[in-house]
Amino acid sequence: MPDKVLIYSRLPKSMTQRFADRFDLLDSGGRPAHEVFPAEEMAQIRALITAGGTPLGAADMDRLPSLGAIVCYGTGYDGVDLKAAAARNIAVGHSPGANAAAVADVAVMLMLATTRRLVVADRYVRDGSWAEAKPSPLMKPPPSLGGCKVGVYGMGAIGRKIAARVAAFETDIGYFSRTRYDDLPYRYFQSLDALAEWCTVLMIAVRAGAETTHAVNADLLKKLGPDGHVVNISRGSVIDQAALLSALKDGSIAGAGLDVFEAEPHVPDELTAQPNLVVTPHIGGNTREAHVAMQACVVANLAAFFAGEKLPYQVKS
Amino acid sequence: MPDKVLIYSRLPKSMTQRFADRFDLLDSGGRPAHEVFPAEEMAQIRALITAGGTPLGAADMDRLPSLGAIVCYGTGYDGVDLKAAAARNIAVGHSPGANAAAVADVAVMLMLATTRRLVVADRYVRDGSWAEAKPSPLMKPPPSLGGCKVGVYGMGAIGRKIAARVAAFETDIGYFSRTRYDDLPYRYFQSLDALAEWCTVLMIAVRAGAETTHAVNADLLKKLGPDGHVVNISRGSVIDQAALLSALKDGSIAGAGLDVFEAEPHVPDELTAQPNLVVTPHIGGNTREAHVAMQACVVANLAAFFAGEKLPYQVKS
Repeated sequence: MPDKVLIYSRLPKSMTQRFADRFDLLDSGGRPAHEVFPAEEMAQIRALITAGGTPLGAADMDRLPSLGAIVCYGTGYDGVDLKAAAARNIAVGHSPGANAAAVADVAVMLMLATTRRLVVADRYVRDGSWAEAKPSPLMKPPPSLGGCKVGVYGMGAIGRKIAARVAAFETDIGYFSRTRYDDLPYRYFQSLDALAEWCTVLMIAVRAGAETTHAVNADLLKKLGPDGHVVNISRGSVIDQAALLSALKDGSIAGAGLDVFEAEPHVPDELTAQPNLVVTPHIGGNTREAHVAMQACVVANLAAFFAGEKLPYQVKS
Repeated sequence: MPDKVLIYSRLPKSMTQRFADRFDLLDSGGRPAHEVFPAEEMAQIRALITAGGTPLGAADMDRLPSLGAIVCYGTGYDGVDLKAAAARNIAVGHSPGANAAAVADVAVMLMLATTRRLVVADRYVRDGSWAEAKPSPLMKPPPSLGGCKVGVYGMGAIGRKIAARVAAFETDIGYFSRTRYDDLPYRYFQSLDALAEWCTVLMIAVRAGAETTHAVNADLLKKLGPDGHVVNISRGSVIDQAALLSALKDGSIAGAGLDVFEAEPHVPDELTAQPNLVVTPHIGGNTREAHVAMQACVVANLAAFFAGEKLPYQVKS
């Protein structure tokens, strides 16, 4: 009999098919599991698959008294209370690096789209304004990327891939992360403040958590300056979204590109009404190959757990 | 008295200010010059500034009997009848390489935007569909760029900068151009057909002209396959636009990103209605630094001409 695995977050069937081939899935379709499955069924569940951003705290864990493994689909695990998991002897796994290239591609796409105003440009052509010679919203040329100072906040697998891509655009790259890496050819800054003072474009690639929540606030955005742009492919919690809205409205910065938001999938209407913003619905890791790689990590973590072994992709806490 | 220079194409005042500081500009505002200026004034004009794509043939030259220099703003000169100019002893100048980085940035932006479906993604968030959990147009994940075969058609200053950028996305790069360059680390193909057979994403960076008109036609697009994308930042004439529309509609290719069109600023409504297309209004070279560099080439060409010297940035014909 295959092992039972709870699908804890709302995941499309296309993403869980590979798990269904191997495990007996209990899928709550994104609703709270204890509202869908009876307590006796919950009591048998030893492992679950979750999107790392979905809240999973002590109370949730206590509804699953046999739980031994929380396996995150993707690199993030910010929704999981790691202390509560450790206290209950629950292993937490994720998919480190599996989607890094795909996410970095989206980061660079958003950087280019916000600096060159792609969404405004596309609309200007598409609605016939260009053909009718209506005043162009693109009349004022933006600065070139060449020579532009780009700051990368966080230098994990994704930050490295972002930096490698951005360097090809003849930019000057600096970074801030807890660790200084001697193998990297980029300028290191001792603090996020110092990085923001220096750079014009800020790329957020830091892991979400208590210490990075609202790290990018009104003061920090102001340091980027009126030609400044911020791109976030990490987690919405890293940016103070209300401060970003103000900065976009009052011209403290020139624009922003966001793949992640504070309360996904909800994005305030006032934010999406801003023309100097480009938004995508958390699609960073959404490529065929990234899904295959993330799914391989999930399967490897689950297989090891059910075999009584240590998870191969265990979160370091 | 400053030398008189005709502004032959429609160029915004912000782009001609630097010329006005040095020359006496006759600006027809984009209308045919001979309809704006009397014949005796036309007869005195010795030099003009034009956007390279604006048609400028023998008959136009004959209305300017003193014309000695045609100076293109930008790298292109496809609108200028070079044989007619040579026959009249008119020098033709342009701005080679001045906007190459800015144009290459837009090429990569369009490549990322078409492969990751940015415009559709932005709209899905912006119109509230994501928040309302409406079916996502992005459910089927696209292939990753990593390992993707990208073909560059044309390997001049812009093609080289495109290839250098695209290589950072962990792609495999091939190219076709009249010349094979031994200094380049990319795979060379003997023909555009062979390149298209090999690659999935085709980046058009070839100089426009009779030999490249409609080089990218229905047959060629089909070779890219159903995961294929085409990006054009060169000139609209290189693509058979009607064939591209069909290919986008019937799924022969997955998508396209266009900064240039056959009859700018006119783009057929049926083309802009396609969701698998991203469009920009010929903004490739539109950055502050690119304009400064292009203007420097224009001024240097005009100054040399009026000093009786050879143009420093003369078109090789």
